[in-house]
Amino acid sequence: MDNKGKLSKREGEIKIRVRFSETDKMGFAWHGNYFSWFEMGRTELLREAGLAYRDLEESGTMFAVVSAECSYKHPAKYDDILTLKTCVIRITPIRIEHEYRLYRDSLLIAVGKTVLASINLEGKVHPIPDSIVALFQ
Amino acid sequence: MDNKGKLSKREGEIKIRVRFSETDKMGFAWHGNYFSWFEMGRTELLREAGLAYRDLEESGTMFAVVSAECSYKHPAKYDDILTLKTCVIRITPIRIEHEYRLYRDSLLIAVGKTVLASINLEGKVHPIPDSIVALFQ
Amino acid sequence: MDNKGKLSKREGEIKIRVRFSETDKMGFAWHGNYFSWFEMGRTELLREAGLAYRDLEESGTMFAVVSAECSYKHPAKYDDILTLKTCVIRITPIRIEHEYRLYRDSLLIAVGKTVLASINLEGKVHPIPDSIVALFQ
Amino acid sequence: MDNKGKLSKREGEIKIRVRFSETDKMGFAWHGNYFSWFEMGRTELLREAGLAYRDLEESGTMFAVVSAECSYKHPAKYDDILTLKTCVIRITPIRIEHEYRLYRDSLLIAVGKTVLASINLEGKVHPIPDSIVALFQ
Repeated sequence: MDNKGKLSKREGEIKIRVRFSETDKMGFAWHGNYFSWFEMGRTELLREAGLAYRDLEESGTMFAVVSAECSYKHPAKYDDILTLKTCVIRITPIRIEHEYRLYRDSLLIAVGKTVLASINLEGKVHPIPDSIVALFQ
Repeated sequence: MDNKGKLSKREGEIKIRVRFSETDKMGFAWHGNYFSWFEMGRTELLREAGLAYRDLEESGTMFAVVSAECSYKHPAKYDDILTLKTCVIRITPIRIEHEYRLYRDSLLIAVGKTVLASINLEGKVHPIPDSIVALFQ
Repeated sequence: MDNKGKLSKREGEIKIRVRFSETDKMGFAWHGNYFSWFEMGRTELLREAGLAYRDLEESGTMFAVVSAECSYKHPAKYDDILTLKTCVIRITPIRIEHEYRLYRDSLLIAVGKTVLASINLEGKVHPIPDSIVALFQ
Repeated sequence: MDNKGKLSKREGEIKIRVRFSETDKMGFAWHGNYFSWFEMGRTELLREAGLAYRDLEESGTMFAVVSAECSYKHPAKYDDILTLKTCVIRITPIRIEHEYRLYRDSLLIAVGKTVLASINLEGKVHPIPDSIVALFQ
């Protein structure tokens, strides 16, 4: 695999019910909470592919967030049921990029992206295990 | 020290500015966030006594929350400056109880209490180090 | 109804998957997050009874948390699937008390309780609508 | 003012003590929490300029987050004292862009950016009040 990584097509989908505790005084879901939803999307995408992130951690591979971004198009309200679509858009020997699209019904309300780096228990960058690379190519 | 523990008089005081992210759609600070403020009160009380909880953890002693409660008398609003008074009300060989009083100016807006158990890195209950017991008696 | 309120038997059950963002550096779910789960339990209990809290708010009735407590018996870990059982244990003309039991499989890991007061849009205490009282008696 | 907005030089600085509740099981501050710190930076920058966001809201102007991003260079640990430098990098008739640089001592650990849109109480985009535009030009 070249260093630019390769495009991946795998996509997962989860439902999220907006919690009361996730709202702020503007009456909508607080913008920082979207990143916890994206994290859920990653966890479930990996699980659907046959791996539990919890097991991965126990085997010595962790993923540190290198960058995160979100574009907010419409607010999410308390008790809304949202659909989050998560996909891996790129994977290199040490990094993995996810894209997120969040919907209320068919309305796209937010788009996000994260870059994760593979690290070991000492916090040093180390190659993503082949078993994971294989899943997302 | 007998098992019922002893009363302690040590008290600490911190200021808290209510964050926007801590509010909920009712327009006030979300009730679960008070427990993060209480935790800050504990950290600073210990620091004033000459110990950093971070160092304590590194030396192998951690405190797990066994119970937590809060009584909410008046709401806290975004951008309010609150005063939190934290004191140790009881200490036994393995447990430490704190009480919290939260004020906006002179108005008491909440009262809380927590019980913590001393555990080691394996999560097993172990005696609170004498150096800490001595601080709070 | 007398002021002591009456016992209620209605109980709801939800599943909760512990999020990565809900953990703290001890490696377990942070204790304050349990109160967001209890809030979810209340929302779903009400929904099962045929009412959405969101609609209730829009009709001018809100519930403010007067007190909240939790006893932690065993830690909850990232990615655990927990079962939360929520029931109304008492209802008076202006207050409603819930009890929560949180399980991992058959192991009871936490027990909580909250007292809520019925307030109107101005934040003043006002009677719980009869339609709600009827649901939980 | 042209629609591209103008560069602004105003900068504010706050100190942040990383809370225990802000950490996650990797042992560092959870990445989504940085956005609550950025929000604090905005609040204090505005206050230093002579305005309270709370008052602004009460006068009918709110700012909705349109996009948010953060690049994480080094982790932040529990109990770290961080320095957050916040500045307005661009202001248009309806949007305001902030940049954030987060330091531990002299080490730059994260860089963020947000775009906010000025909205009224109905959630509709409306011009940023001249008094605010003047502050940041």
